[in-house]
Amino acid sequence: MELALTINELTAYLAEIFPQMRGEFEFENLRFNALRVRMKVAEHHLRPGGTVSGPSMFALADVAVYAMVLARVGRQALAVTTNCSIDFMRKPAANSDLIADCRLLKCGKVLAVGDVLIFPDGDAKPVARASLTYSIPPAG
Amino acid sequence: MELALTINELTAYLAEIFPQMRGEFEFENLRFNALRVRMKVAEHHLRPGGTVSGPSMFALADVAVYAMVLARVGRQALAVTTNCSIDFMRKPAANSDLIADCRLLKCGKVLAVGDVLIFPDGDAKPVARASLTYSIPPAG
Amino acid sequence: MELALTINELTAYLAEIFPQMRGEFEFENLRFNALRVRMKVAEHHLRPGGTVSGPSMFALADVAVYAMVLARVGRQALAVTTNCSIDFMRKPAANSDLIADCRLLKCGKVLAVGDVLIFPDGDAKPVARASLTYSIPPAG
Amino acid sequence: MELALTINELTAYLAEIFPQMRGEFEFENLRFNALRVRMKVAEHHLRPGGTVSGPSMFALADVAVYAMVLARVGRQALAVTTNCSIDFMRKPAANSDLIADCRLLKCGKVLAVGDVLIFPDGDAKPVARASLTYSIPPAG
Repeated sequence: MELALTINELTAYLAEIFPQMRGEFEFENLRFNALRVRMKVAEHHLRPGGTVSGPSMFALADVAVYAMVLARVGRQALAVTTNCSIDFMRKPAANSDLIADCRLLKCGKVLAVGDVLIFPDGDAKPVARASLTYSIPPAG
Repeated sequence: MELALTINELTAYLAEIFPQMRGEFEFENLRFNALRVRMKVAEHHLRPGGTVSGPSMFALADVAVYAMVLARVGRQALAVTTNCSIDFMRKPAANSDLIADCRLLKCGKVLAVGDVLIFPDGDAKPVARASLTYSIPPAG
Repeated sequence: MELALTINELTAYLAEIFPQMRGEFEFENLRFNALRVRMKVAEHHLRPGGTVSGPSMFALADVAVYAMVLARVGRQALAVTTNCSIDFMRKPAANSDLIADCRLLKCGKVLAVGDVLIFPDGDAKPVARASLTYSIPPAG
Repeated sequence: MELALTINELTAYLAEIFPQMRGEFEFENLRFNALRVRMKVAEHHLRPGGTVSGPSMFALADVAVYAMVLARVGRQALAVTTNCSIDFMRKPAANSDLIADCRLLKCGKVLAVGDVLIFPDGDAKPVARASLTYSIPPAG
Protein backbone atom coordinates (compact mmCIF):
# COMPACT_ATOMS: atom_id res chain seq x y z
CA MET A 1 0.00 0.00 0.00
CA GLU A 2 1.25 3.43 -0.89
CA LEU A 3 0.29 7.00 -0.31
CA ALA A 4 -1.55 8.63 -3.24
CA LEU A 5 0.34 11.93 -2.84
CA THR A 6 3.82 12.93 -1.75
CA ILE A 7 4.24 15.71 0.78
CA ASN A 8 5.12 18.13 -2.03
CA GLU A 9 2.08 17.14 -4.09
CA LEU A 10 -0.08 17.55 -0.98
CA THR A 11 1.32 21.01 -0.32
CA ALA A 12 0.76 22.07 -3.93
CA TYR A 13 -2.78 20.69 -4.00
CA LEU A 14 -3.85 22.38 -0.77
CA ALA A 15 -2.38 25.69 -1.97
CA GLU A 16 -4.39 25.30 -5.17
CA ILE A 17 -7.76 24.52 -3.59
CA PHE A 18 -7.36 26.76 -0.49
CA PRO A 19 -5.37 29.73 -1.82
CA GLN A 20 -6.41 31.79 1.22
CA MET A 21 -4.46 29.41 3.48
CA ARG A 22 -1.17 29.80 1.68
CA GLY A 23 1.67 30.17 4.15
CA GLU A 24 -0.50 29.37 7.16
CA PHE A 25 0.11 25.62 7.36
CA GLU A 26 3.22 23.56 6.62
CA PHE A 27 3.29 19.80 6.22
CA GLU A 28 6.40 18.62 8.02
CA ASN A 29 6.24 14.87 7.99
CA LEU A 30 4.01 12.42 6.14
CA ARG A 31 3.82 8.68 6.71
CA PHE A 32 1.27 6.08 5.69
CA ASN A 33 -0.90 6.66 8.77
CA ALA A 34 0.40 9.92 10.20
CA LEU A 35 0.98 13.55 9.28
CA ARG A 36 2.60 16.41 11.16
CA VAL A 37 1.33 19.92 10.38
CA ARG A 38 2.68 23.25 11.62
CA MET A 39 0.42 26.28 12.01
CA LYS A 40 2.28 29.57 11.89
CA VAL A 41 0.54 31.43 14.66
CA ALA A 42 -0.24 35.04 13.79
CA GLU A 43 -2.27 37.91 15.21
CA HIS A 44 -5.56 36.78 13.66
CA HIS A 45 -5.36 33.43 15.50
CA LEU A 46 -5.50 35.00 18.96
CA ARG A 47 -8.30 35.65 21.44
CA PRO A 48 -8.63 37.59 24.73
CA GLY A 49 -6.00 36.53 27.22
CA GLY A 50 -3.27 36.31 24.58
CA THR A 51 -3.93 32.72 23.57
CA VAL A 52 -4.75 30.94 20.32
CA SER A 53 -8.50 30.85 19.68
CA GLY A 54 -10.60 27.71 19.60
CA PRO A 55 -11.64 28.14 15.96
CA SER A 56 -7.95 28.44 14.98
CA MET A 57 -7.12 25.14 16.70
CA PHE A 58 -10.21 23.57 15.15
CA ALA A 59 -9.01 24.73 11.73
CA LEU A 60 -5.57 23.21 12.36
CA ALA A 61 -7.06 19.83 13.39
CA ASP A 62 -9.43 19.92 10.43
CA VAL A 63 -6.67 20.67 7.93
CA ALA A 64 -4.46 17.96 9.40
CA VAL A 65 -7.02 15.19 8.99
CA TYR A 66 -8.22 16.52 5.62
CA ALA A 67 -4.67 16.55 4.27
CA MET A 68 -3.94 13.11 5.72
CA VAL A 69 -7.05 11.69 4.04
CA LEU A 70 -6.15 13.31 0.70
CA ALA A 71 -2.63 11.90 0.98
CA ARG A 72 -4.27 8.48 1.02
CA VAL A 73 -7.18 8.82 -1.38
CA GLY A 74 -5.81 11.45 -3.79
CA ARG A 75 -7.14 14.79 -5.00
CA GLN A 76 -10.65 14.59 -3.56
CA ALA A 77 -11.22 18.24 -2.66
CA LEU A 78 -14.88 17.53 -1.90
CA ALA A 79 -14.20 15.21 1.01
CA VAL A 80 -16.16 16.79 3.88
CA THR A 81 -15.96 16.71 7.66
CA THR A 82 -19.07 15.07 9.09
CA ASN A 83 -18.11 15.18 12.77
CA CYS A 84 -15.46 16.68 15.02
CA SER A 85 -14.97 16.38 18.73
CA ILE A 86 -12.31 18.61 20.23
CA ASP A 87 -11.02 19.07 23.78
CA PHE A 88 -9.14 22.22 24.74
CA MET A 89 -6.90 21.23 27.63
CA ARG A 90 -4.38 24.01 28.21
CA LYS A 91 -3.88 27.57 27.02
CA PRO A 92 -1.26 27.76 24.30
CA ALA A 93 1.11 30.69 24.56
CA ALA A 94 0.58 33.30 21.85
CA ASN A 95 4.17 33.32 20.69
CA SER A 96 4.72 29.73 19.57
CA ASP A 97 3.70 27.92 16.43
CA LEU A 98 1.35 25.00 16.97
CA ILE A 99 2.17 21.47 15.83
CA ALA A 100 -0.59 18.98 15.00
CA ASP A 101 0.22 15.28 15.08
CA CYS A 102 -2.47 13.42 13.15
CA ARG A 103 -3.03 9.65 13.15
CA LEU A 104 -5.31 8.10 10.56
CA LEU A 105 -7.30 5.42 12.42
CA LYS A 106 -9.61 4.32 9.63
CA CYS A 107 -9.67 4.94 5.90
CA GLY A 108 -12.76 3.16 4.55
CA LYS A 109 -14.53 3.60 1.24
CA VAL A 110 -17.10 5.98 2.69
CA LEU A 111 -15.76 7.26 6.01
CA ALA A 112 -12.29 8.09 7.33
CA VAL A 113 -11.47 8.77 10.99
CA GLY A 114 -8.39 10.50 12.33
CA ASP A 115 -7.30 11.98 15.61
CA VAL A 116 -4.95 14.84 16.37
CA LEU A 117 -2.85 16.05 19.29
CA ILE A 118 -1.87 19.73 19.18
CA PHE A 119 1.31 20.92 20.89
CA PRO A 120 3.06 24.28 21.09
CA ASP A 121 6.33 23.97 19.19
CA GLY A 122 8.93 22.54 21.58
CA ASP A 123 6.48 21.67 24.36
CA ALA A 124 5.60 18.06 25.28
CA LYS A 125 2.19 18.80 26.82
CA PRO A 126 -0.73 18.81 24.39
CA VAL A 127 -2.96 21.88 24.42
CA ALA A 128 -5.79 20.21 22.52
CA ARG A 129 -6.93 16.90 21.11
CA ALA A 130 -9.46 16.32 18.36
CA SER A 131 -11.02 13.47 16.44
CA LEU A 132 -12.66 13.96 13.07
CA THR A 133 -14.68 11.93 10.62
CA TYR A 134 -14.51 12.66 6.92
CA SER A 135 -16.98 11.50 4.31
CA ILE A 136 -15.22 10.56 1.07
CA PRO A 137 -17.18 11.18 -2.14
CA PRO A 138 -17.57 8.17 -4.45
CA ALA A 139 -14.75 8.01 -6.98
CA GLY A 140 -15.77 9.07 -10.46
CA MET B 1 -33.45 34.86 37.99
CA GLU B 2 -32.34 37.42 35.47
CA LEU B 3 -29.85 37.72 32.68
CA ALA B 4 -26.65 39.55 33.63
CA LEU B 5 -26.48 41.42 30.32
CA THR B 6 -29.00 42.79 27.85
CA ILE B 7 -28.61 42.06 24.17
CA ASN B 8 -27.14 45.54 23.64
CA GLU B 9 -24.66 45.14 26.48
CA LEU B 10 -23.68 41.73 25.09
CA THR B 11 -23.13 43.20 21.62
CA ALA B 12 -21.01 46.03 23.01
CA TYR B 13 -18.94 43.71 25.20
CA LEU B 14 -18.19 41.25 22.40
CA ALA B 15 -17.19 44.12 20.09
CA GLU B 16 -14.84 45.36 22.81
CA ILE B 17 -13.11 42.05 23.54
CA PHE B 18 -13.14 40.69 19.97
CA PRO B 19 -12.71 43.79 17.81
CA GLN B 20 -11.70 41.63 14.83
CA MET B 21 -15.21 40.10 14.80
CA ARG B 22 -17.03 43.38 14.51
CA GLY B 23 -19.82 43.14 11.97
CA GLU B 24 -19.47 39.40 11.54
CA PHE B 25 -22.03 38.26 14.13
CA GLU B 26 -25.34 39.79 15.17
CA PHE B 27 -27.31 38.80 18.26
CA GLU B 28 -30.94 38.69 17.19
CA ASN B 29 -32.84 37.32 20.14
CA LEU B 30 -31.84 36.69 23.74
CA ARG B 31 -33.85 34.85 26.33
CA PHE B 32 -32.93 33.33 29.69
CA ASN B 33 -31.88 30.02 28.16
CA ALA B 34 -31.59 30.78 24.47
CA LEU B 35 -29.81 33.05 22.03
CA ARG B 36 -30.10 33.48 18.27
CA VAL B 37 -26.98 34.63 16.41
CA ARG B 38 -26.62 35.56 12.74
CA MET B 39 -23.34 35.10 10.89
CA LYS B 40 -22.99 37.34 7.86
CA VAL B 41 -21.47 34.92 5.41
CA ALA B 42 -18.64 36.43 3.37
CA GLU B 43 -15.96 35.26 1.00
CA HIS B 44 -13.49 34.28 3.73
CA HIS B 45 -16.01 31.81 5.22
CA LEU B 46 -16.11 29.64 2.09
CA ARG B 47 -14.31 26.45 1.05
CA PRO B 48 -14.01 24.42 -2.19
CA GLY B 49 -17.42 23.55 -3.58
CA GLY B 50 -18.87 26.97 -2.75
CA THR B 51 -19.98 26.13 0.76
CA VAL B 52 -19.30 27.58 4.22
CA SER B 53 -16.21 26.01 5.80
CA GLY B 54 -16.24 23.85 8.90
CA PRO B 55 -14.08 26.25 10.94
CA SER B 56 -16.52 29.08 10.12
CA MET B 57 -19.46 27.06 11.44
CA PHE B 58 -17.42 26.03 14.46
CA ALA B 59 -16.68 29.71 15.13
CA LEU B 60 -20.39 30.54 14.89
CA ALA B 61 -21.37 27.78 17.35
CA ASP B 62 -18.55 28.80 19.69
CA VAL B 63 -19.55 32.47 19.66
CA ALA B 64 -23.21 31.59 20.23
CA VAL B 65 -22.54 29.54 23.38
CA TYR B 66 -19.86 31.95 24.63
CA ALA B 67 -22.22 34.92 24.29
CA MET B 68 -25.09 32.98 25.88
CA VAL B 69 -22.89 32.10 28.86
CA LEU B 70 -21.71 35.71 29.25
CA ALA B 71 -25.33 36.90 29.09
CA ARG B 72 -25.89 34.77 32.18
CA VAL B 73 -22.68 35.17 34.16
CA GLY B 74 -21.59 38.67 33.09
CA ARG B 75 -18.39 40.06 31.63
CA GLN B 76 -16.17 37.00 32.03
CA ALA B 77 -14.04 37.29 28.91
CA LEU B 78 -11.78 34.49 30.13
CA ALA B 79 -14.45 31.81 30.06
CA VAL B 80 -12.94 29.10 27.82
CA THR B 81 -14.29 26.30 25.70
CA THR B 82 -13.16 22.96 27.11
CA ASN B 83 -14.99 20.69 24.63
CA CYS B 84 -16.94 20.91 21.41
CA SER B 85 -18.63 18.21 19.40
CA ILE B 86 -19.99 19.27 16.04
CA ASP B 87 -21.84 17.41 13.28
CA PHE B 88 -21.90 18.78 9.75
CA MET B 89 -25.08 17.42 8.19
CA ARG B 90 -25.74 19.29 4.97
CA LYS B 91 -23.86 21.73 2.75
CA PRO B 92 -24.97 25.28 3.34
CA ALA B 93 -25.34 27.38 0.22
CA ALA B 94 -22.68 30.09 -0.09
CA ASN B 95 -25.16 32.92 -0.56
CA SER B 96 -27.19 32.82 2.66
CA ASP B 97 -26.39 34.05 6.15
CA LEU B 98 -26.29 31.36 8.79
CA ILE B 99 -28.48 31.44 11.89
CA ALA B 100 -27.40 29.72 15.11
CA ASP B 101 -30.04 28.81 17.67
CA CYS B 102 -28.34 28.18 21.00
CA ARG B 103 -29.93 26.57 24.06
CA LEU B 104 -28.18 26.78 27.41
CA LEU B 105 -28.63 23.36 29.02
CA LYS B 106 -26.55 23.85 32.14
CA CYS B 107 -25.02 26.90 33.80
CA GLY B 108 -23.15 25.67 36.87
CA LYS B 109 -20.50 27.42 38.94
CA VAL B 110 -17.64 25.75 37.08
CA LEU B 111 -19.04 24.36 33.82
CA ALA B 112 -21.72 25.51 31.38
CA VAL B 113 -23.12 23.38 28.54
CA GLY B 114 -25.01 24.61 25.51
CA ASP B 115 -26.07 23.20 22.19
CA VAL B 116 -26.61 24.88 18.85
CA LEU B 117 -28.49 24.19 15.63
CA ILE B 118 -27.25 26.08 12.58
CA PHE B 119 -29.63 26.91 9.71
CA PRO B 120 -29.26 28.87 6.49
CA ASP B 121 -31.43 31.95 6.80
CA GLY B 122 -34.96 31.03 5.78
CA ASP B 123 -34.36 27.28 5.63
CA ALA B 124 -35.89 24.84 8.14
CA LYS B 125 -33.29 22.09 7.73
CA PRO B 126 -30.25 22.39 10.00
CA VAL B 127 -26.85 22.24 8.29
CA ALA B 128 -24.95 21.59 11.51
CA ARG B 129 -25.39 20.89 15.19
CA ALA B 130 -22.89 21.46 17.96
CA SER B 131 -22.60 21.08 21.72
CA LEU B 132 -20.02 22.96 23.74
CA THR B 133 -18.77 23.04 27.30
CA TYR B 134 -17.37 26.22 28.78
CA SER B 135 -15.26 26.48 31.90
CA ILE B 136 -16.15 29.58 33.90
CA PRO B 137 -13.31 31.22 35.84
CA PRO B 138 -13.90 31.74 39.57
CA ALA B 139 -15.46 35.14 40.23
CA GLY B 140 -13.20 37.73 41.80
CA MET C 1 -43.63 11.20 3.84
CA GLU C 2 -44.56 8.59 6.37
CA LEU C 3 -42.93 6.59 9.10
CA ALA C 4 -41.95 3.06 8.08
CA LEU C 5 -43.04 1.57 11.41
CA THR C 6 -45.74 2.32 13.96
CA ILE C 7 -44.84 2.53 17.62
CA ASN C 8 -46.21 -1.00 18.16
CA GLU C 9 -44.22 -2.40 15.24
CA LEU C 10 -41.12 -0.67 16.57
CA THR C 11 -41.64 -2.15 20.03
CA ALA C 12 -42.15 -5.64 18.62
CA TYR C 13 -39.13 -5.38 16.36
CA LEU C 14 -36.77 -4.20 19.10
CA ALA C 15 -38.00 -6.97 21.41
CA GLU C 16 -37.26 -9.47 18.65
CA ILE C 17 -33.74 -8.30 17.83
CA PHE C 18 -32.70 -7.33 21.38
CA PRO C 19 -34.50 -9.88 23.57
CA GLN C 20 -32.19 -9.06 26.48
CA MET C 21 -33.64 -5.51 26.60
CA ARG C 22 -37.23 -6.61 26.97
CA GLY C 23 -38.98 -4.53 29.59
CA GLU C 24 -36.09 -2.10 29.97
CA PHE C 25 -37.19 0.53 27.44
CA GLU C 26 -40.67 1.77 26.50
CA PHE C 27 -41.47 3.88 23.46
CA GLU C 28 -43.96 6.48 24.62
CA ASN C 29 -44.43 8.82 21.71
CA LEU C 30 -43.38 8.61 18.08
CA ARG C 31 -43.61 11.36 15.52
CA PHE C 32 -42.00 11.85 12.13
CA ASN C 33 -38.88 13.47 13.59
CA ALA C 34 -39.10 12.67 17.27
CA LEU C 35 -39.33 9.78 19.70
CA ARG C 36 -39.74 9.64 23.46
CA VAL C 37 -38.26 6.62 25.25
CA ARG C 38 -38.55 5.66 28.92
CA MET C 39 -35.83 3.67 30.67
CA LYS C 40 -37.06 1.77 33.71
CA VAL C 41 -34.22 2.41 36.10
CA ALA C 42 -33.20 -0.67 38.07
CA GLU C 43 -30.37 -1.72 40.37
CA HIS C 44 -28.03 -2.71 37.55
CA HIS C 45 -28.13 0.83 36.11
CA LEU C 46 -26.59 2.43 39.20
CA ARG C 47 -23.06 3.43 40.16
CA PRO C 48 -21.32 4.65 43.36
CA GLY C 49 -23.10 7.64 44.85
CA GLY C 50 -26.57 6.22 44.09
CA THR C 51 -26.87 7.61 40.60
CA VAL C 52 -27.50 6.15 37.15
CA SER C 53 -24.25 5.12 35.47
CA GLY C 54 -22.84 6.73 32.35
CA PRO C 55 -23.03 3.53 30.28
CA SER C 56 -26.73 3.20 31.19
CA MET C 57 -27.46 6.71 29.93
CA PHE C 58 -25.36 6.06 26.85
CA ALA C 59 -27.44 2.92 26.19
CA LEU C 60 -30.65 4.92 26.55
CA ALA C 61 -29.49 7.59 24.09
CA ASP C 62 -28.25 4.93 21.69
CA VAL C 63 -31.54 3.00 21.76
CA ALA C 64 -33.55 6.18 21.29
CA VAL C 65 -31.74 7.23 18.11
CA TYR C 66 -31.54 3.64 16.82
CA ALA C 67 -35.29 3.17 17.25
CA MET C 68 -36.03 6.57 15.73
CA VAL C 69 -33.92 5.71 12.67
CA LEU C 70 -35.62 2.30 12.30
CA ALA C 71 -39.03 3.98 12.56
CA ARG C 72 -38.02 5.92 9.47
CA VAL C 73 -36.07 3.42 7.40
CA GLY C 74 -37.72 0.16 8.48
CA ARG C 75 -36.35 -3.09 9.87
CA GLN C 76 -32.64 -2.45 9.37
CA ALA C 77 -31.23 -4.19 12.45
CA LEU C 78 -27.70 -3.75 11.12
CA ALA C 79 -27.73 0.03 11.24
CA VAL C 80 -24.71 0.89 13.39
CA THR C 81 -23.63 3.81 15.53
CA THR C 82 -20.54 5.43 14.06
CA ASN C 83 -20.18 8.29 16.55
CA CYS C 84 -21.64 9.47 19.83
CA SER C 85 -20.90 12.55 21.85
CA ILE C 86 -22.52 12.70 25.27
CA ASP C 87 -22.45 15.30 28.05
CA PHE C 88 -23.36 14.32 31.59
CA MET C 89 -24.63 17.50 33.22
CA ARG C 90 -26.34 16.58 36.49
CA LYS C 91 -26.61 13.50 38.67
CA PRO C 92 -29.92 11.75 38.16
CA ALA C 93 -31.56 10.47 41.32
CA ALA C 94 -31.55 6.67 41.57
CA ASN C 95 -35.28 6.38 42.14
CA SER C 96 -36.76 7.88 38.96
CA ASP C 97 -37.15 6.50 35.49
CA LEU C 98 -35.25 8.38 32.80
CA ILE C 99 -36.97 9.89 29.77
CA ALA C 100 -35.10 10.40 26.50
CA ASP C 101 -36.42 12.94 24.01
CA CYS C 102 -34.86 12.22 20.63
CA ARG C 103 -34.94 14.52 17.60
CA LEU C 104 -33.94 13.19 14.20
CA LEU C 105 -31.91 15.97 12.57
CA LYS C 106 -30.86 14.19 9.39
CA CYS C 107 -31.95 10.97 7.74
CA GLY C 108 -29.85 10.57 4.61
CA LYS C 109 -29.22 7.50 2.49
CA VAL C 110 -25.97 6.68 4.24
CA LEU C 111 -25.89 8.60 7.53
CA ALA C 112 -28.55 9.63 10.04
CA VAL C 113 -27.99 12.09 12.90
CA GLY C 114 -30.11 12.50 16.00
CA ASP C 115 -29.79 14.21 19.32
CA VAL C 116 -31.25 13.36 22.69
CA LEU C 117 -32.02 15.12 25.95
CA ILE C 118 -32.37 12.86 28.99
CA PHE C 119 -34.57 13.91 31.92
CA PRO C 120 -35.57 12.22 35.16
CA ASP C 121 -39.30 11.50 34.93
CA GLY C 122 -41.15 14.63 36.06
CA ASP C 123 -38.09 16.90 36.15
CA ALA C 124 -37.55 19.75 33.66
CA LYS C 125 -33.76 19.88 33.96
CA PRO C 126 -31.86 17.58 31.62
CA VAL C 127 -29.27 15.29 33.21
CA ALA C 128 -27.55 14.46 29.94
CA ARG C 129 -27.48 15.30 26.26
CA ALA C 130 -26.16 13.19 23.44
CA SER C 131 -25.81 13.30 19.68
CA LEU C 132 -25.34 10.18 17.60
CA THR C 133 -24.60 9.29 14.00
CA TYR C 134 -25.87 6.05 12.53
CA SER C 135 -24.64 4.43 9.35
CA ILE C 136 -27.49 2.85 7.41
CA PRO C 137 -26.66 -0.28 5.42
CA PRO C 138 -27.55 -0.19 1.71
CA ALA C 139 -31.04 -1.55 1.12
CA GLY C 140 -31.18 -4.91 -0.51
CA MET D 1 5.66 12.38 40.54
CA GLU D 2 4.21 9.02 41.42
CA LEU D 3 1.00 7.14 40.90
CA ALA D 4 -1.36 7.21 43.89
CA LEU D 5 -2.32 3.54 43.48
CA THR D 6 -0.57 0.40 42.28
CA ILE D 7 -2.27 -1.85 39.78
CA ASN D 8 -3.26 -4.23 42.61
CA GLU D 9 -4.69 -1.42 44.72
CA LEU D 10 -6.60 -0.16 41.70
CA THR D 11 -8.04 -3.61 41.03
CA ALA D 12 -9.08 -4.03 44.66
CA TYR D 13 -10.64 -0.56 44.83
CA LEU D 14 -12.68 -0.99 41.65
CA ALA D 15 -13.92 -4.39 42.85
CA GLU D 16 -15.00 -2.74 46.09
CA ILE D 17 -16.89 0.19 44.58
CA PHE D 18 -18.25 -1.64 41.51
CA PRO D 19 -18.89 -5.18 42.80
CA GLN D 20 -21.16 -5.88 39.82
CA MET D 21 -18.16 -5.52 37.48
CA ARG D 22 -16.05 -8.13 39.20
CA GLY D 23 -14.34 -10.35 36.66
CA GLU D 24 -15.41 -8.23 33.70
CA PHE D 25 -12.36 -5.97 33.44
CA GLU D 26 -8.67 -6.68 34.08
CA PHE D 27 -5.99 -4.03 34.42
CA GLU D 28 -2.99 -5.35 32.54
CA ASN D 29 -0.47 -2.57 32.51
CA LEU D 30 -0.29 0.72 34.41
CA ARG D 31 2.15 3.52 33.81
CA PHE D 32 2.18 7.16 34.87
CA ASN D 33 0.13 8.30 31.86
CA ALA D 34 -1.24 5.07 30.45
CA LEU D 35 -3.34 2.06 31.37
CA ARG D 36 -4.24 -1.09 29.47
CA VAL D 37 -7.58 -2.72 30.33
CA ARG D 38 -8.98 -6.03 29.09
CA MET D 39 -12.73 -6.60 28.80
CA LYS D 40 -13.70 -10.26 28.90
CA VAL D 41 -16.32 -10.34 26.21
CA ALA D 42 -19.39 -12.39 27.14
CA GLU D 43 -22.88 -13.00 25.80
CA HIS D 44 -24.40 -9.91 27.43
CA HIS D 45 -21.98 -7.62 25.56
CA LEU D 46 -23.26 -8.62 22.12
CA ARG D 47 -25.79 -7.09 19.73
CA PRO D 48 -27.47 -8.20 16.48
CA GLY D 49 -24.93 -9.25 13.90
CA GLY D 50 -22.74 -11.04 16.45
CA THR D 51 -20.66 -8.03 17.44
CA VAL D 52 -19.92 -6.24 20.70
CA SER D 53 -22.52 -3.55 21.44
CA GLY D 54 -21.81 0.17 21.54
CA PRO D 55 -22.74 0.53 25.22
CA SER D 56 -20.30 -2.26 26.09
CA MET D 57 -17.46 -0.48 24.31
CA PHE D 58 -18.51 2.80 25.93
CA ALA D 59 -18.36 1.08 29.33
CA LEU D 60 -14.87 -0.21 28.58
CA ALA D 61 -13.59 3.23 27.56
CA ASP D 62 -15.27 4.80 30.58
CA VAL D 63 -13.75 2.30 33.02
CA ALA D 64 -10.31 2.71 31.46
CA VAL D 65 -10.19 6.48 31.90
CA TYR D 66 -11.88 6.32 35.33
CA ALA D 67 -9.33 3.81 36.58
CA MET D 68 -6.44 5.78 35.07
CA VAL D 69 -7.62 8.95 36.81
CA LEU D 70 -8.02 7.13 40.15
CA ALA D 71 -4.53 5.67 39.76
CA ARG D 72 -3.31 9.26 39.71
CA VAL D 73 -5.56 11.02 42.19
CA GLY D 74 -6.36 8.17 44.59
CA ARG D 75 -9.61 6.69 45.87
CA GLN D 76 -12.03 9.30 44.52
CA ALA D 77 -15.00 7.09 43.70
CA LEU D 78 -17.14 10.17 43.03
CA ALA D 79 -15.12 11.40 40.07
CA VAL D 80 -17.69 11.67 37.28
CA THR D 81 -17.61 11.63 33.50
CA THR D 82 -18.72 15.00 32.13
CA ASN D 83 -18.22 14.26 28.43
CA CYS D 84 -17.45 11.38 26.13
CA SER D 85 -16.99 11.30 22.40
CA ILE D 86 -16.69 7.87 20.85
CA ASP D 87 -16.19 6.67 17.27
CA PHE D 88 -17.08 3.14 16.29
CA MET D 89 -14.87 2.30 13.33
CA ARG D 90 -15.03 -1.45 12.71
CA LYS D 91 -17.13 -4.36 13.93
CA PRO D 92 -15.31 -6.35 16.59
CA ALA D 93 -15.68 -10.10 16.29
CA ALA D 94 -17.80 -11.62 19.05
CA ASN D 95 -15.22 -14.17 20.09
CA SER D 96 -12.27 -11.99 21.17
CA ASP D 97 -11.65 -10.03 24.31
CA LEU D 98 -11.31 -6.30 23.80
CA ILE D 99 -8.22 -4.36 24.88
CA ALA D 100 -8.42 -0.66 25.76
CA ASP D 101 -5.25 1.43 25.63
CA CYS D 102 -5.83 4.62 27.59
CA ARG D 103 -3.59 7.69 27.57
CA LEU D 104 -4.06 10.37 30.21
CA LEU D 105 -3.66 13.69 28.37
CA LYS D 106 -4.47 16.07 31.21
CA CYS D 107 -4.84 15.63 34.95
CA GLY D 108 -5.75 19.03 36.37
CA LYS D 109 -7.25 19.92 39.72
CA VAL D 110 -10.78 20.03 38.38
CA LEU D 111 -10.80 18.22 35.02
CA ALA D 112 -8.94 15.22 33.63
CA VAL D 113 -8.94 14.20 29.96
CA GLY D 114 -7.99 10.83 28.55
CA ASP D 115 -8.34 9.04 25.27
CA VAL D 116 -8.68 5.37 24.47
CA LEU D 117 -8.13 3.08 21.51
CA ILE D 118 -9.99 -0.25 21.63
CA PHE D 119 -8.59 -3.30 19.84
CA PRO D 120 -9.71 -6.92 19.63
CA ASP D 121 -7.10 -9.02 21.43
CA GLY D 122 -4.31 -9.78 18.95
CA ASP D 123 -5.52 -7.41 16.24
CA ALA D 124 -3.65 -4.21 15.31
CA LYS D 125 -6.65 -2.35 13.86
CA PRO D 126 -8.67 -0.32 16.37
CA VAL D 127 -12.43 -0.96 16.44
CA ALA D 128 -13.21 2.20 18.40
CA ARG D 129 -11.69 5.34 19.80
CA ALA D 130 -13.00 7.47 22.62
CA SER D 131 -12.06 10.59 24.54
CA LEU D 132 -13.48 11.34 27.96
CA THR D 133 -13.43 14.19 30.45
CA TYR D 134 -13.72 13.50 34.16
CA SER D 135 -14.59 16.04 36.82
CA ILE D 136 -12.61 15.43 39.99
CA PRO D 137 -14.34 16.31 43.26
CA PRO D 138 -12.46 18.72 45.57
CA ALA D 139 -10.26 16.82 48.01
CA GLY D 140 -11.64 16.73 51.52
